Amino acid sequence: MTGWVAIAGLGPGDEALVTPEVRAAMAEATDAVGYIPYVRRVPERPGLTRHETDNREELDRARHALEMASEGRRVLVASSGDPGVFAMAAAVFEAVEDGPAHWRDLDIRVLPGVTAMLAAAARAGAPLGHDFCAINLSDNLKPWSLIERRLMAAVAGDFAMAFYNPRSKARPEGFGRVLDLLRAEAGSDRVILFARAVTTPDEALVVTTLGEATPEMADMRTMVIVGSSATRVIARDGRPFVYTPRWAAP
Amino acid sequence: MTGWVAIAGLGPGDEALVTPEVRAAMAEATDAVGYIPYVRRVPERPGLTRHETDNREELDRARHALEMASEGRRVLVASSGDPGVFAMAAAVFEAVEDGPAHWRDLDIRVLPGVTAMLAAAARAGAPLGHDFCAINLSDNLKPWSLIERRLMAAVAGDFAMAFYNPRSKARPEGFGRVLDLLRAEAGSDRVILFARAVTTPDEALVVTTLGEATPEMADMRTMVIVGSSATRVIARDGRPFVYTPRWAAP
Repeated sequence: MTGWVAIAGLGPGDEALVTPEVRAAMAEATDAVGYIPYVRRVPERPGLTRHETDNREELDRARHALEMASEGRRVLVASSGDPGVFAMAAAVFEAVEDGPAHWRDLDIRVLPGVTAMLAAAARAGAPLGHDFCAINLSDNLKPWSLIERRLMAAVAGDFAMAFYNPRSKARPEGFGRVLDLLRAEAGSDRVILFARAVTTPDEALVVTTLGEATPEMADMRTMVIVGSSATRVIARDGRPFVYTPRWAAP
Repeated sequence: MTGWVAIAGLGPGDEALVTPEVRAAMAEATDAVGYIPYVRRVPERPGLTRHETDNREELDRARHALEMASEGRRVLVASSGDPGVFAMAAAVFEAVEDGPAHWRDLDIRVLPGVTAMLAAAARAGAPLGHDFCAINLSDNLKPWSLIERRLMAAVAGDFAMAFYNPRSKARPEGFGRVLDLLRAEAGSDRVILFARAVTTPDEALVVTTLGEATPEMADMRTMVIVGSSATRVIARDGRPFVYTPRWAAP
């Protein structure tokens, strides 16, 4: 039995952010599974079969990967960003836990990558330079009340915040409620960054304040980062730098 | 003026986790500055000067990089992990804000990398597969009261937590207090992962519970990850998988 599953993080989009470890796994795989735009980033070659699936079928895709590995195939699960952050790794382990016992003995590796919040932060400066939270704003898989509880806790702890999946066509309303909550709890002057499609040709960044932010500034390709109370903006020609200092006053 | 500063994330240690973007910057730089073990990871070559500094001199190092870039040099600031997460990027922007006005017009880029928590999480499974916080447990640059406030908020929000710099020779006591606080607030059964020197030859992982955890399990090379209430352990031969499901029950 030489099969394996490698859940590989392809980074935010730019091929120059794909690690050599992930490239090597792409070169060794017999099969690549994943959401269509991600699996298409695995270069075609003889001996590789690419299995394209819809974004909503994460558990099915995970089971398919595990089944193929059980049969001795070398399966790359293509994930955007880092596979462990709101991506495919958790789905694979959910499938392992609920699946046949022998899946637990498979060679399953997670290959880390550059997750979207790090790429977005890098473009703006260092807004996550001190303690921060990462929150998925989609309520597809959790109750909205838990999102609000976590937002309140993040404000109470004065964390910077990185929001994944802030808004989609199927969920147009939630992000406006998030902005309202944050304005009420953290104040209108708090810095907010909208980073759309970072490291791709469609990249667009906007630095503003909660008071000026509107829900339409985010879509499904946008990372949103909200500063802590200490986050600073350095004005200059062009887009300002945004950073959160390493220190905090007593 | 063709100088620049590239604050480059070298990842957690394994050269296979250094992005091509960072490799390209290494190849173009005239100067590399950084803490000794990181700057030594920039390959020597003719035309490159490596400036090794002590870890405590972050702001001096940042200013040195900015001065050299002002003089037209191409300066790589070598940072471990991702430069924007408890690393050199915030120090550089602090220096920019406090420095001469012309530094604001320099070409300053942050090159993201695989930060330690993502590499540690990948080795264990997907413990950061749902909402999480990242907290630097060093009180060198912030009051201990703020660390405790953030721990309490992280528990209140039921986040998974990733702890950087949990313990050092100069700060032997704090991490024990963190464990005590977490046991009291989150319970003894909560999963905790100690991931030491991940992706290096010294790598060692321990998966246990807060009830069984002791301060000595961490040192300055250890990432600590504490699960949320939903984090699960999949028993199997050898080290278990640890993951936090993508969903949460209403």
